[in-house]
Amino acid sequence: MTTGDPGNTVAYIYNSAVAASAVSAAWELGALDQLDQRGSLDVHEFAADHRLDVPATLGLFRALASVDIVHREDAKVVPGPHFAETLRTRSFFHWLTRGSAELFRRMPELLREENRVGDFHRRDSAAIARACREISAFCYDPWFWEAVDGLDFAVSAVADLGCGSGDRLIKLLERRPGARAVGVDIARPALDVAQEAAAAAGLADRVTLLEADVRTMEARPELAGVDLLTCFMMGHDFWPRDRCVDTLRRLRALFPDARRFLLGDATRTVGVADRDLPAFALAFECGHDIMGTFIPTAGDWESVFEEGGWRLLRKHSIDIAVGEVIFELERL
Amino acid sequence: MTTGDPGNTVAYIYNSAVAASAVSAAWELGALDQLDQRGSLDVHEFAADHRLDVPATLGLFRALASVDIVHREDAKVVPGPHFAETLRTRSFFHWLTRGSAELFRRMPELLREENRVGDFHRRDSAAIARACREISAFCYDPWFWEAVDGLDFAVSAVADLGCGSGDRLIKLLERRPGARAVGVDIARPALDVAQEAAAAAGLADRVTLLEADVRTMEARPELAGVDLLTCFMMGHDFWPRDRCVDTLRRLRALFPDARRFLLGDATRTVGVADRDLPAFALAFECGHDIMGTFIPTAGDWESVFEEGGWRLLRKHSIDIAVGEVIFELERL
Repeated sequence: MTTGDPGNTVAYIYNSAVAASAVSAAWELGALDQLDQRGSLDVHEFAADHRLDVPATLGLFRALASVDIVHREDAKVVPGPHFAETLRTRSFFHWLTRGSAELFRRMPELLREENRVGDFHRRDSAAIARACREISAFCYDPWFWEAVDGLDFAVSAVADLGCGSGDRLIKLLERRPGARAVGVDIARPALDVAQEAAAAAGLADRVTLLEADVRTMEARPELAGVDLLTCFMMGHDFWPRDRCVDTLRRLRALFPDARRFLLGDATRTVGVADRDLPAFALAFECGHDIMGTFIPTAGDWESVFEEGGWRLLRKHSIDIAVGEVIFELERL
Repeated sequence: MTTGDPGNTVAYIYNSAVAASAVSAAWELGALDQLDQRGSLDVHEFAADHRLDVPATLGLFRALASVDIVHREDAKVVPGPHFAETLRTRSFFHWLTRGSAELFRRMPELLREENRVGDFHRRDSAAIARACREISAFCYDPWFWEAVDGLDFAVSAVADLGCGSGDRLIKLLERRPGARAVGVDIARPALDVAQEAAAAAGLADRVTLLEADVRTMEARPELAGVDLLTCFMMGHDFWPRDRCVDTLRRLRALFPDARRFLLGDATRTVGVADRDLPAFALAFECGHDIMGTFIPTAGDWESVFEEGGWRLLRKHSIDIAVGEVIFELERL
């Protein structure tokens, strides 16, 4: 991975940490898109267009250049050898350096047992949401649509558990003109965004949004008739094991007409050496360890379905970054 | 620096950002010292000794192992090929991921002109102080004492501008039994620490501590008779140029008996390619650019001394990480 001079390599590790913050900033400020679309960027013009401070903006591009994400000659910036891969994985950087920064900054405090009580950690939920929208699209969407298109029945109603800003529901309804949808989320602000998005897409009358915790929600009339359940990037919150089995059973009872359940999530890495961990896996697992959230392996999941009242029909292993998998389940 | 596979290299950049936070945490929690002194560490024992959460502590060492700072086999951790250099530069990591984390997390907001008004940035001053105490010792001390020992007069009174917790003053008085000292700092908490440290060293009656901004302080009787002025790691706050010239002139007038002025600080890198920047230089310069603090080059400094009433006798170029230099000045 790196050459032999420890001084240079440690400088590379150090500068990478600065560059990681700069990747998130460059994404938010539009610099990554401009470099991708136009192939170059002038720091003075870019700063003027976006009303940014010039020395600080130059600092951002120096940080990216220090690890060859871009190359810089004075104020002229062009993509470097690691640009394309960084562009592809920018949402992982954002999750880490914007959404979860507070968690990693406070690592020394948060490791101490005495500080791990109550509501002991804080992340930036708006930043996490921004990152996760792109992570969801690039890690799950192709496989998700393949699974949806492969269903052996016509969907009449879908419920998305942890629907967030409603992207998945809206796309589903656009592809299934006769269907209706129920979105469930614990976060009111996300549901407000989903409501607006549904209205903008002319789908308001086909969407019901419910503010509830998926793990404890009660039966409701809107849940009858739902034949497809989907749940992405939140299944690890069902765990530990006993609670997960309970939740799976509850969902089976709450949605008596559900024929299929598409459950997609990241799973804990198994058998990968520390130095071979792909981008995101380390931060995702370490971050959840700091927060005290159990992340199941794919094997852990496979051990609970029958007990929870579901049969595993198919497993789509995606494995882009952190053991992403989609389980396709049917009622037992 | 790195092999050709962009996917692997970007994962290395990404994991380096997680590891950088882990370096600071491992220093604060005593793990770096234990690995240095005992050559190995068991995660379960270490967590029990320090009352830490086990999975989160394991996460910390996985992060260090991902970029070969340590090697890990299950719970057994030993130093890796980059351990020694990381240990040496841990204070730079701490400055970045603990002291200045907030600055880099908020990069996208803080670059925007509209947000750069008033007191727009915040750092963790206690964390910065911890990092800077070690940075000062390892970047400046050997050269500082060489300069002090080379003085051609017997010091009777020294004033340290920006004295912080008083380390430098106390060591000076221990080496110069007949001398007295004046410490000036803007931060009351630092002066309280200095007061205690002086008392503990039995030097309270030889030390005067003054709470004041070096750039605007008024004449005081205690300043008469001071023949040695020292000022470390704060000279960049004298700038921009006009204000720096004024401050140098003011100091010349405030300390009418000063024969020598040892001024040590980091200076802005000149002529180093972005990808060759050593650890700390990039973060130090980029961080000050985000804060809008001008960092002079060594050349900028050399251009102000005569105008400010001082003659440059000698220049000690240290250049460990960020153009550290000690200027030895005498009154014109």
